[in-house]
This record gives sequence, C-alpha cells and structure tokens, in this order.
Amino acid sequence: MSGFIKYGQSSFKFTKCPSVLSYAAIVGKKEGEGPLKDSFDRIEEDEYFGQKTWESAESALFKEAVVTALEKGGFSPSDIDLLVSGDLLNQCTATGYAARSLTIPYIGLYGACSTMAESLLCSSVFVSGGAKRAVAATSSHFCGSEKQFRFPLEYGSQRPPSSQWTVTGSGAVVLGEEGSGPYITHATAGCVIDAGITDANNMGAAMVPAFCDTLHRHLTSFGAKPSDYDMIFSGDLGHLGKKIAIDLFYEEYKENLSSNYDDCGCLIFDNKTQDVHSGGSGCGCSASVLCSHILPQMKNGNLKRVLFIATGALMSPTMSLQGESIPSVAHAVEFNICPEK
Amino acid sequence: MSGFIKYGQSSFKFTKCPSVLSYAAIVGKKEGEGPLKDSFDRIEEDEYFGQKTWESAESALFKEAVVTALEKGGFSPSDIDLLVSGDLLNQCTATGYAARSLTIPYIGLYGACSTMAESLLCSSVFVSGGAKRAVAATSSHFCGSEKQFRFPLEYGSQRPPSSQWTVTGSGAVVLGEEGSGPYITHATAGCVIDAGITDANNMGAAMVPAFCDTLHRHLTSFGAKPSDYDMIFSGDLGHLGKKIAIDLFYEEYKENLSSNYDDCGCLIFDNKTQDVHSGGSGCGCSASVLCSHILPQMKNGNLKRVLFIATGALMSPTMSLQGESIPSVAHAVEFNICPEK
Repeated sequence: MSGFIKYGQSSFKFTKCPSVLSYAAIVGKKEGEGPLKDSFDRIEEDEYFGQKTWESAESALFKEAVVTALEKGGFSPSDIDLLVSGDLLNQCTATGYAARSLTIPYIGLYGACSTMAESLLCSSVFVSGGAKRAVAATSSHFCGSEKQFRFPLEYGSQRPPSSQWTVTGSGAVVLGEEGSGPYITHATAGCVIDAGITDANNMGAAMVPAFCDTLHRHLTSFGAKPSDYDMIFSGDLGHLGKKIAIDLFYEEYKENLSSNYDDCGCLIFDNKTQDVHSGGSGCGCSASVLCSHILPQMKNGNLKRVLFIATGALMSPTMSLQGESIPSVAHAVEFNICPEK
Repeated sequence: MSGFIKYGQSSFKFTKCPSVLSYAAIVGKKEGEGPLKDSFDRIEEDEYFGQKTWESAESALFKEAVVTALEKGGFSPSDIDLLVSGDLLNQCTATGYAARSLTIPYIGLYGACSTMAESLLCSSVFVSGGAKRAVAATSSHFCGSEKQFRFPLEYGSQRPPSSQWTVTGSGAVVLGEEGSGPYITHATAGCVIDAGITDANNMGAAMVPAFCDTLHRHLTSFGAKPSDYDMIFSGDLGHLGKKIAIDLFYEEYKENLSSNYDDCGCLIFDNKTQDVHSGGSGCGCSASVLCSHILPQMKNGNLKRVLFIATGALMSPTMSLQGESIPSVAHAVEFNICPEK
C-alpha cells in the first residue's frame, strides 16, 4: 500500500517506507579539520570550488554532492525522478543553478537550515506516493552566507560568542522505493514559531522553540518517548541552543533529553580548537553530518532508530533591519533500519 | 488507492485525486482596475496593506488570501495539515512570516513564479498520499519585487518594452481528499532549463523553453495533445513570451498552441490602457488568475479540463550581476471537473 497514514495535524507514518539507497557528504577545508574529518566523501581545500564567486562555488559544491551520491549508488540522473532541494542563498541560487546541468526535475524548497529534513520529508512523500527515486539535498557556504546574512568577510566584523559558523558543505541522499534500508518510517512537518529573538547572531536560541514543538508533536503523534531512540539529532542549534533545548524541553514537557541527544552543529567542529563560538550552522551542516556521521552508523548497525530534526531560522536580513524577530521551523524525519518499528 | 502512478521521469497520474475545496484571490489597486476586476475576492486600495514596509505588506496580503480561502470553505487552521507555499522575497519572507500566526505546519517552497503550480503539485502529492487537506498559496508585490530584483521605485528607472509588471496579488487554494471538484488529476514536475538569457527585464523569453519542455513532457507522458484541453494556461510569460512560446512549441514539436492557449500574464492587465509593457508577472500573477478566472470557470462548468503551467525564472540578482544567465523551471498541474478523464 502506497502513501502514509496521518497522525495528529501533520505527522506521517509511511505505509511504503522509502529506503536510503546512497548518500554523499562533501565539505570545505575547515570542516575537514574537524572531528568528522575521516567520514566525508571529499574535503575540498579550495574555498572557491574552482569557481570565481562564492555563489558559484556553493553551486559547484552542491552539484558535486549530488553527483557523488548518484555515483555511489550506481545511478545516472535519468534514474532519478526528482531533485528535492534548496539552500540559503537568495533565490536558492546554489541548487537552482546546479539543477540546470543535472537534468532531474526540480522541486525547489526553502526551509533555511531545516531544509535537509524538509527535503527528506517531501522526497519520502513523493517516493511513498509512487515515485521511484528522489534525491534530497542541501548546501551552504560560509563565505556566501556571511556576505548575504551579515557582512562581507572583507569587513572583518567581530562575531559574538552566541554566533554559529555556517558550514561549507553539502549532503545528498538518494531515496527509493527499493533498497534494504535504513528506511524513513515516520515524519512530522513543523509549524513556524517565533520566540521573539531579534539577534541574527543568536540563531540557536531563536530555533529552540520550533525544535521542541516539532519533537513533542512527533513523540505525541506516535506514542514515543525520547529514550525510544538510539539517537535524537537536532540540526544546528549549536552549543548554546542545545543547552537551551534540553532546559526548555524539560520545562515544557517534563521529559529529559539525555545522552542520546546531540546537535549537528556541535558535532561538526571541535569547539576547543576551531574557534567557531557556538558551533556549526547552515543547511549544509545537518546535511553533511547526516551523510557522514549518522547514516553510516545506521548502515553498520551502530544506530537502529534515529530521529533527525533539522531546524531553520526563516530569517530575512531585510526584516531584521526593520526590527522584526526571527521565525523558525523544524521538521522531523525518523530513520529505522527496519521498515516497521 | 492512495498516491499516484508515475509516467515518464516525473509525470504523475493521481489515483486518489485531490479536490479543490475553496480558493481566494486578493490583489492590489492596479490589478483591481484590470479585466478581471469583478472576479477577485478583494481589491485593496492601500499598497501597504496596513503595514509599514513592502515586505510586511506582502506578508499581510498573503495571510489574508489564505484566511479568506479557509473562511470560504468553512475551515479553521486546525483543519489544515499543511501550508505549502512560497514567494519571491529573499528568504520567502511573505509566506514564512505569515505562517507564524497561521499555526499550520509549513512546507516552504521556492520556484520563483512557478511556485503556484509547484505548491499545487506538492499539495496534491501530500493529499493523495494520505493528508486530509493542504493549502497551496503564493504571493508577490510589485514594490517589494522591484526593490529586490531590479531597483527601488524611488530611483524611477525606465522599464524596457520587454519587461513585465510584477502583480501585487495572492492566491490560495484549499485542496482536500473529500470534495466535489474540480480535481487535480495529473501533474508534471519540470526540469531547470537555461536558454542563455541574461536580461532580467526579459523574463518571458527566459522562461519559454522551460514551459515548452514541461508542456511537451506532460502531453507525451499521458498521450494527450493540446486540443484535448479546454484551456492551457501558462503562468506569466507575458505578451512577448506568449508569442515566443507559440512559435517555439511549433518549431520544436510541430504542434499548434491555438485559441485554447493563454497566459496569466496577458490576462490580468489590459495592455492597451494599463501601461504594463509585456504583461503581468510574479508568483501572485498566476495564483490570483487561477483563483479568480480559471477555477470559477471550472466550478460553473465553462471549463472542464485545464492544464495550468506556471513558469518561474530562478533568477538571482547577484548571479545576474556576475554575468550569469537565468535558469527557468515550469511545473504542470492538470485540473478536471471529473476525477477520472
């Protein structure tokens, strides 16, 4: 039976669970010096990825992650029904421009740093509904993001301790109706929540309420508790945000997020030696951590059931300059090495 | 049976066809003086929609279109599983900020002016897969778009004859598994195609190849010909683009797009009296034309089978300034007053 069964307002239990067929993570030099350095498919020393601008660099990075994921699975673009992807650059530049030469029908998304979970969720709905294969992918680039969301690097502006370091990286996952797992078994689409944070250098705090809300809704919909998962990963709350998330989730729902909870923004850099302040961010962060650290551990059986909740600050520099606060969203995707829990 | 059957690389025939439950179109003053003036749900005289900035104005406009569509269908936000939407503003400001107060789980899209078809396509996949109801909606605002993509209005820059006028408008459609039609029976997701156009004031020409490609793939997938449809609507090619589309489609595929073909960008303004050069554009254009001109004609039986292909120029001002050309995409959604053709 195709499709999914709906629980609550927008939690889905897939009746035909899409399987992860292949995946790839490609990152920049700094990410390649971090704790996950041995897990990436490629570490690129050239920040420009052979291009002349940051925007084209990110587009080249994104394309390479997709092409690598396809190659690892033995697929050509014509084997793929949909490229479901987005990025942080204005007008989804990295993905839209890369899609020109990929010749895979393109569903463009914008979910800020939540995009990896959003693209996995949407791809799963397409595959469970009747598509054969879809690629879920996102990217981000430190230099392009700083230029766009804060200041061009040449200004040399000071970063406050709460700020996070946008990951130069891209992750791509090929999902399909065939395959032997890990499977996406459940998902929950998130509501936009605004905690009233106006500081574009404190994204972790801005995104925590959306993370807690989506996690709570996912657990409630499926009668699960945090300890049911081998691991729960949030996307890019960073060190500050992770602490707030643990506190807020306990305060609001009286449940502990303990040793089986971690954040992709805390995993990708070594905070003691890499001077990234509150950790990593950017939609390439959760994407590259998923494809280098999480999925391989599911493939080798170290992790059996994982909840992946990427969080996004739907921040617009224009709105921030107008004094507006930062709305956030988080989407949850549940992986399991068995198609049924 | 839920879901869809796949034809070709990414054409879908829904086995459980989502039904249009309600819809609304809200526009600005200039649009309200055009040929469709009697068909909109509301014409707002205040370009700021009661707000202080163009970005907040568009967000208010978008929210009002969604709320009006819900009210017309007798729905509250909790009756809706997903808000599947996007807009043209950097970081999808209008929709993301509006989603804060709508409390409907939010799937953010970016497809430039193709977003209305993209949101209908994705909403249909969600509803056919197992969701109960989804809202597909987009918006655009002339003043915000000019400021972002070209120049602030205060510069008083000259617009060349090939330029189109971004529509201040929003359209929202509530799709659901229940209902008595019109139904979305088929859809085709489009590939990104770049015709090499670098002029941001000639979007129609840039988007035509994507339109022709998606139309051709849709027809081929389902063994249809243009004359099988009561009407085929392209989204925002404008007067110049429409002419090129007819020529190019004949040249490439030897098929005539005749009197049953029109373009949303040609329908919304009176070109003789409203001085909009090549017609309307913006993702609020096809959205508001769909919800004021097309769907009502399907409801009253004037149109029985309609192909709606919204086209988007995935243009980034940054990339244009770097000399890059404009990639485009088009998605097709087929409406029918019967769930099976």
